[in-house]
Amino acid sequence: MEKTDSNKRRIYFDWAASAPFSRLPDTAVYGNPSSQHSEGRNAKQCLEDARNRCADALNVPPQTLTFTSGGTESNSIAIFSTLTRPGKGRVISSLAEHASIREGIETLEKMGKPTGKITVDSFGRVTPDTYAKALSQYPDTRFAAIMAVNNETGAITDIKSLTSLAGENKAPVHFHCDIVQAVGKIPIDIQNWNIDSASISAHKIGGPRGIGLLYLRKPLEVFYSGGGQENGARGGTENVQGAMALADCLESIKDIEAQTLKAKSRWDKLITTLCSMERCAIIPKERTISGGLFSPYILQTAFKNIPGEVMARALDDLGFAVSTGSACSSSSPERPVLTAMGVDEKLRMEGIRISQGAATTDEEIDLLINGITEVLNFL
Amino acid sequence: MEKTDSNKRRIYFDWAASAPFSRLPDTAVYGNPSSQHSEGRNAKQCLEDARNRCADALNVPPQTLTFTSGGTESNSIAIFSTLTRPGKGRVISSLAEHASIREGIETLEKMGKPTGKITVDSFGRVTPDTYAKALSQYPDTRFAAIMAVNNETGAITDIKSLTSLAGENKAPVHFHCDIVQAVGKIPIDIQNWNIDSASISAHKIGGPRGIGLLYLRKPLEVFYSGGGQENGARGGTENVQGAMALADCLESIKDIEAQTLKAKSRWDKLITTLCSMERCAIIPKERTISGGLFSPYILQTAFKNIPGEVMARALDDLGFAVSTGSACSSSSPERPVLTAMGVDEKLRMEGIRISQGAATTDEEIDLLINGITEVLNFL
Repeated sequence: MEKTDSNKRRIYFDWAASAPFSRLPDTAVYGNPSSQHSEGRNAKQCLEDARNRCADALNVPPQTLTFTSGGTESNSIAIFSTLTRPGKGRVISSLAEHASIREGIETLEKMGKPTGKITVDSFGRVTPDTYAKALSQYPDTRFAAIMAVNNETGAITDIKSLTSLAGENKAPVHFHCDIVQAVGKIPIDIQNWNIDSASISAHKIGGPRGIGLLYLRKPLEVFYSGGGQENGARGGTENVQGAMALADCLESIKDIEAQTLKAKSRWDKLITTLCSMERCAIIPKERTISGGLFSPYILQTAFKNIPGEVMARALDDLGFAVSTGSACSSSSPERPVLTAMGVDEKLRMEGIRISQGAATTDEEIDLLINGITEVLNFL
Repeated sequence: MEKTDSNKRRIYFDWAASAPFSRLPDTAVYGNPSSQHSEGRNAKQCLEDARNRCADALNVPPQTLTFTSGGTESNSIAIFSTLTRPGKGRVISSLAEHASIREGIETLEKMGKPTGKITVDSFGRVTPDTYAKALSQYPDTRFAAIMAVNNETGAITDIKSLTSLAGENKAPVHFHCDIVQAVGKIPIDIQNWNIDSASISAHKIGGPRGIGLLYLRKPLEVFYSGGGQENGARGGTENVQGAMALADCLESIKDIEAQTLKAKSRWDKLITTLCSMERCAIIPKERTISGGLFSPYILQTAFKNIPGEVMARALDDLGFAVSTGSACSSSSPERPVLTAMGVDEKLRMEGIRISQGAATTDEEIDLLINGITEVLNFL
């Protein structure tokens, strides 16, 4: 295999970690939205226009949207709001949540908050059964965090089927949903899903770093309000330019059914070809082009006797960017999500994540298949 | 007075709220620094280059710098780190701190943390005497938050004279310093000041929104580490592009003594002229071109019988952007910093803040003086 040289074409299959930028921050607007003068009012207007455009794209009322610095902060604001109600109620979360939720729950535990875990199935999903079991095991639950699309396998949890269950519990449960890997990738319907809060990140859908959204069905007492911006939900001078770019990104997600079909067609080809390779093991093994419900943008797979890190490095040398696990957990060799899914240790170590974007082409899929074949011939 | 029309020249005197952008985020680098492939390693390299450049500009070791989403988040990470040491020690802060500190302290109080206030003098500064008094009043103090440059008056607190006092206390006190309005405005020497942590915001010095720095002399156990990025001090995908722009901004602050002299020359002219106006009252009244130690970028002043909001609006109509108080507190009619300085209620309501930047010109000062004169003839 030849080594990468800087002129070599790069093919990017790590969109779930961060997408190439399609929208840049507008820098003509520099006023502080809290200022009363013309520049400030203009900035405020741009911020509220951006909020309205995001709200239209997400089909939610604009006052439910708070701009944050990204998915991690959106998750943390939701989680730590439970600290404003000390001692009251348990916080439960699925075993497949993103590190930003997992670490938040650990912080809550240190603060003495009772917590609990919701198991996931072999796909990495929370099912109505396991959620009902958790609610029954922890009748004092007042907050639940369950992601919509698993960021390592792409498995889709049927959120609506869970929130309808929550209603059967005697006390209301705040249902927080990390939809970072769902926005732009699968049809979402925040209001119909009946969730109380949701997290969105711009840089996963082509926007700049440092901007995200927190959806709050109702105003929430937050742990820390900073300077009182964003209706007290998130302090700090508002990132107006980022908000405008995020609005552009959300507006650009048009005709998601058609986009999803195209993505699925590319993914089906990849999965079918991989399944035909003797040494390849799709994770979970039940995932086929027809089986199960997965985002057609994320694929977890393994190759027999090739550690994931070695495979990722070999593909990188050939010009392909793929990852092992979630970028946010890459500093740890553990694969907690795969562990929760019941994937055995050897397979966990062999897992790699391939993720595509709206701009991925059929040709790139063919090239990736060739690349994987080349590596398998070599290793 | 004629009303603003959109073609009219605007003159910006609210740099303390937010500076016009001089550096834009670089968007060629889109990898996630936590990813192991070429794009990820390149992003990581750019991030560490940016950290090294910031460290050089600030004359601190690179490992002491954590990229955050801005000054508010930097302040909150420092403050809430005290929650990892429950029950141990009091958190004290000056009465002139920014809203992001003030609100953080209120959150700590709700969590049962003992707190205390440090009074300020009529300039809005903490003096060695008042700091020593606070340390003696609260011998269980383990954390103190005192800003370097007051964001409403520009008054400079001699930080070094305070941290040398802290050494006399029996237990070590973590000294946190908000240097958001100091960076690029006055000579700073973080290491010589002997502070334990400091907050920096990019958008106050020409950088983009959504990026800032937290200086930590030693690694700090933080309340919430998110995905473990930034050596566990700040979670979330790193804003590499913002970090690169912030490094550019810090590097552009060259020859600060010469820049400060030019800014002071402009400010001296403004202050001298304002002092000659019968209805003008500089806040504090002791501030003259020679008296006291102030940042030559911020001025608090009042005009007899003209509410600050009316004055700011009248100037805005003439094309000048000035503010009443801190932008981050603009939603509240209170002026807590001026109150702490002992400014009486009438004068508080009449106060406006004028703030300049490195790009402000002598001509703009002349025009502002003409504008103020015009308003005073009218109102």
